[in-house]
Amino acid sequence: MSLQQISSFAAGEWISPGTGARTIASAITGEAFASAGNSALDVQGMLDYARTVGGPALRKMGFHDRAKMLKALAGALGARKQELYDLSFNTGATQSDHMVDIDGGIGTMFVFASKGRREMPDGQVYLDGDVEQLSRNGTFLGQHICTPLHGVAVHINAFNFPVWGMLEKLAPTLLAGVPAIVKPATNSCYVTELAVKIMLDSGILPAGALQLVSGGLGDMLDRLGMQDVVSFTGSADTALKLRQTPAIVNNAVRFVSEQDSLNASILGPDAEPGTPEFDLFVKEVSREMTAKAGQKCTAIRRIIAPETSVQAVIEALSARLSKTLIGDPRLETTRMGALVSNGQKQDVLEKAAIIGQEAERVFGDPENFTVEGADKDKGAFLPPMLFHCPDADKAERIHDTEAFGPVSTIMGYRDLDHAINIANRGQGSLVTSVITNDAAVARGVVLGSAAYNGRIYINNRTSMKESTGHGSPLPHMVHGGPGRAGGGEEMGGVRGVKHYMQRTAIQGSPEMLSAIGGTWVPGAPEVEGPAHPFTRKFGELSIGETLHTASRTVTMDDIELFANFTGDTFYAHMDDDAAKRNPFFPGRVAHGYLLLSFAAGLFVEPNEGPVLANTGLDNLRFMKPVSAGDSIKVRLSVKKKTRRTDDYGEVRWHVTLTNQDDEMVAEYELLTMNAY
Amino acid sequence: MSLQQISSFAAGEWISPGTGARTIASAITGEAFASAGNSALDVQGMLDYARTVGGPALRKMGFHDRAKMLKALAGALGARKQELYDLSFNTGATQSDHMVDIDGGIGTMFVFASKGRREMPDGQVYLDGDVEQLSRNGTFLGQHICTPLHGVAVHINAFNFPVWGMLEKLAPTLLAGVPAIVKPATNSCYVTELAVKIMLDSGILPAGALQLVSGGLGDMLDRLGMQDVVSFTGSADTALKLRQTPAIVNNAVRFVSEQDSLNASILGPDAEPGTPEFDLFVKEVSREMTAKAGQKCTAIRRIIAPETSVQAVIEALSARLSKTLIGDPRLETTRMGALVSNGQKQDVLEKAAIIGQEAERVFGDPENFTVEGADKDKGAFLPPMLFHCPDADKAERIHDTEAFGPVSTIMGYRDLDHAINIANRGQGSLVTSVITNDAAVARGVVLGSAAYNGRIYINNRTSMKESTGHGSPLPHMVHGGPGRAGGGEEMGGVRGVKHYMQRTAIQGSPEMLSAIGGTWVPGAPEVEGPAHPFTRKFGELSIGETLHTASRTVTMDDIELFANFTGDTFYAHMDDDAAKRNPFFPGRVAHGYLLLSFAAGLFVEPNEGPVLANTGLDNLRFMKPVSAGDSIKVRLSVKKKTRRTDDYGEVRWHVTLTNQDDEMVAEYELLTMNAY
Repeated sequence: MSLQQISSFAAGEWISPGTGARTIASAITGEAFASAGNSALDVQGMLDYARTVGGPALRKMGFHDRAKMLKALAGALGARKQELYDLSFNTGATQSDHMVDIDGGIGTMFVFASKGRREMPDGQVYLDGDVEQLSRNGTFLGQHICTPLHGVAVHINAFNFPVWGMLEKLAPTLLAGVPAIVKPATNSCYVTELAVKIMLDSGILPAGALQLVSGGLGDMLDRLGMQDVVSFTGSADTALKLRQTPAIVNNAVRFVSEQDSLNASILGPDAEPGTPEFDLFVKEVSREMTAKAGQKCTAIRRIIAPETSVQAVIEALSARLSKTLIGDPRLETTRMGALVSNGQKQDVLEKAAIIGQEAERVFGDPENFTVEGADKDKGAFLPPMLFHCPDADKAERIHDTEAFGPVSTIMGYRDLDHAINIANRGQGSLVTSVITNDAAVARGVVLGSAAYNGRIYINNRTSMKESTGHGSPLPHMVHGGPGRAGGGEEMGGVRGVKHYMQRTAIQGSPEMLSAIGGTWVPGAPEVEGPAHPFTRKFGELSIGETLHTASRTVTMDDIELFANFTGDTFYAHMDDDAAKRNPFFPGRVAHGYLLLSFAAGLFVEPNEGPVLANTGLDNLRFMKPVSAGDSIKVRLSVKKKTRRTDDYGEVRWHVTLTNQDDEMVAEYELLTMNAY
Repeated sequence: MSLQQISSFAAGEWISPGTGARTIASAITGEAFASAGNSALDVQGMLDYARTVGGPALRKMGFHDRAKMLKALAGALGARKQELYDLSFNTGATQSDHMVDIDGGIGTMFVFASKGRREMPDGQVYLDGDVEQLSRNGTFLGQHICTPLHGVAVHINAFNFPVWGMLEKLAPTLLAGVPAIVKPATNSCYVTELAVKIMLDSGILPAGALQLVSGGLGDMLDRLGMQDVVSFTGSADTALKLRQTPAIVNNAVRFVSEQDSLNASILGPDAEPGTPEFDLFVKEVSREMTAKAGQKCTAIRRIIAPETSVQAVIEALSARLSKTLIGDPRLETTRMGALVSNGQKQDVLEKAAIIGQEAERVFGDPENFTVEGADKDKGAFLPPMLFHCPDADKAERIHDTEAFGPVSTIMGYRDLDHAINIANRGQGSLVTSVITNDAAVARGVVLGSAAYNGRIYINNRTSMKESTGHGSPLPHMVHGGPGRAGGGEEMGGVRGVKHYMQRTAIQGSPEMLSAIGGTWVPGAPEVEGPAHPFTRKFGELSIGETLHTASRTVTMDDIELFANFTGDTFYAHMDDDAAKRNPFFPGRVAHGYLLLSFAAGLFVEPNEGPVLANTGLDNLRFMKPVSAGDSIKVRLSVKKKTRRTDDYGEVRWHVTLTNQDDEMVAEYELLTMNAY
């Protein structure tokens, strides 16, 4: 049988394997079926292509354009996911593993597309935080912004999730406006290659936005500069080597690292046998040990249970693990497939032997287990193996040795502080979970362990039906962790997009900040429109377009009428003496909602027009009370515009209410939906 | 004269200089006057003391407690600032330089104190961003939090700002809840030592929160672990060496680096001679060249002007520089003092010689200048030196050679893209400024250069009176930059505090997230109070305490009355046909403000009581229109409590309005001020 040729995609061309290619074996049969790699790949050409073709094309687009692009890419992948499933069995993964890798990857892309539309601007400059008041009169202000780096993102991925591993990095990178060069682990790069082909075939991506290296990276990292990013997932050893590349150190190249870690799961002291949480714990641990044959950077390696429950957990877990059918992942009955390669299997056995020096194997025998539908000795199969460590405090290796397979160690704790101490001995984890129905236990674990974790997962009877699992990084939440976990962060919504952008503090006058951010800053010049702004379509409105209303006097009759009508007879509005005793009021004052309502009466244009609805209001602050006899007037300015559908967009108005002495009475932002 | 002994403060004890001490010379006379350093310092003892005594004490406090502590420290320093001024002249700095270093440092501390109170919670867990909806029914949610690292922050500071340099790092560190070990540059450590003494003498700091190393750090960095942080300011060469410390690399220790960079200032094409911006540019450049004798990491090293204006800038700048009196900094007439040491002077001359290979010196002669009140040959004096480079594109060294003194190079540009290209050749800067009155120029520079800069400073005739200067990092804005500037960030308000905290993604049920964050999350159990919550004092209210109101039917008469009363006769409320043509409404609907007002009427307790005022409203969204005949009811729950003064605190209420079918009509957060 001739080997399948796994190609690279470099500077717009598919490049077949050449010198330096490596063969890849099926995880199920151990037989070579593919070949990848080309030591003659023009890595400088790839970098140049990304920087000069891909980057400029992506930066021309705005965040919303790129979000739409992500959505379309996810759709294209979804339409051909069966092809990806079919190919993925060779990695040893089951259909349920594919759901995590392939559907999970596509879902991640959809979430970033949606967050890009909802949480990022319809333009090229992301505003990071609020305007900072740097001067008394407000002529000099500050605003942080994020803009795309001008370089290329090099993604170095692990073998275990050939699709999700690529997409969880690619989605925020492309959303940021940065081109990517993806280098999957060679063991499973044929799945990544197909996913890249599907995306490129779709014609959705601009040229240069995505390139692929199947095989080694050559000296690409030696050629990186200060506008580039390396995002790495894999072992601590490899990360350590890569992050010391001279070009990376000398040029302060961002190096985001997500490393396997000794994640822990803690069974709460309240979660005794017989509680829903006890059963949940056994289920979560069992799933984390066997999903993807335990080849997950987030898998539970250390099981931390109350001393009194350790035996019960071992029994329940063993019972559950013994029902996990191991076999050819293509069989529907198979619950756990093979490891990715026989090399990986060998490595797991070596690490298990190290763990065995400090813990006793209480379930699973690698010399004696059953595999359905495949040759146990040729494929990379292993049974789940549970170890029991009698003294977590004395142990060293179980806190620093990761067997990257279906291997975990249980240990007992005396009290919650002891449990936290054991968990923290992992010296930095991607995730620690705690299964408890006691909120005080959850808070205790968080206060004690959060500094050591990128994520803390809490589950109980309330959340168990909808919870997503200890081991599942979600695009909404950061994935990464301190110390042994690499010190990096990925995803976490917009946070993950920022890794591919530069944050810059901008200082200047309100007019300058308005022009840069595309958002009107109070104090910037007002734009006079040709007509009432409510008569103007979305596209016609300018940023800063402003309406000044007439003024209206608020009378005691108004306050009385409003109070009696609405039922809001709060003492500050009704009782002059009580109001005077209040530290904020000079006597009876108008209701805040009366002022808001009168303001609307002043600025609204009543006739049918492009303003479709008032959809909300933000950041309302009442600054000065209004007494009977005072009058108010309104300034209404277009602060920001965001396209929402093909028919309408959202207009954010900055509104101030001032009194007869031009003192600010209230300030807020009003949201309307406006027709195009 | 015996040498002044500059001590270290280690594990609660002042340790005098011992073996390995170094002498320190006056910048003005070149004579040794002090001695610092002790190679027998117990660095492990210092780390242990910080980790086991200082850290736990700081973490017991909340963010507001620590903010108050910062304010008190700043006050203590302010009360004794004359002593700091008096001592600082020895570094060569003038009184106006002291204002930047000493008053600037104290001001930075006050800003962090204020931001801690206003932007961080009155508790131990900082909520980073909003709750993330991770499940359809909302039983499983996400929330990012930040909590203090459990280690120690080692601050390695530059010689130029012995007070500000310490405080700009110390303020966010202490606010985060992390103890610090401060290591100032030996050349000016006597000023830092006094500032530390003042803070310790004040008795405000818990034991272990602050230690000082005067002299070398020994092997302290080799002893750092995953909970520690190094924050470095200084040269790129030193940073490069330190960041490769094996313990730092192996343990993924955070290394924040802020390095000198080749900062640029661009004169806008619009800012021709005769405009206010031209004069402003000359003034800013001159100030940046001479303040602190040019020993500022943010100083303008590259002056980028339109080709047609280069000669005019050289002339105006030379005229201004020629009026800069150089001399003993203690003299009131002195505008520029000495460099910190003769070694530094020598280094600047060497770097100037390198720049001289590509540029011609057009102002300032180190062999021929006047010094008032001091011996020119003994003190570390230099004149400001301006170079002109005729071809910025061909030049290499002027884009990578930093003479850390009063030295700058002017070069011409053809058009704005050319100017941006020249600026970006610095390969990463702390700051680039652009002096322009054209907002399109400012936006162009930002889009082209933001990826290369930590800060972009824009100035014009509007902001010039209140602007803070190209070279002034402000506590509100990030300070740092990519590439050559080190790739780090400091300050930037809460952003800078986060460098000393771990961000952790928390997942769990609403009840769990509420308990962890001290903030009620919708979906968490409601707490039934003993009485109407408006009758309960601040301290009596529980998080989650909830009121459910009766319901009220909205009639067409109500809508008519409200429209006529307020003047808000928007068509969606008045014209059934027009409302039906609108994509959002089934016909005439009630005003949003009518609903808010009726809601207040439903939940308000009218009698005088602990609720003092409704101060604001956030995140209001109208979800479903209300027609005549529909009824609404309100749920009001205590979301969050924040102490504000000794008399009252802010209560944030989560409010939902639902209709007769229990569908959500509106959701918002209400703010009240409540008496204790």
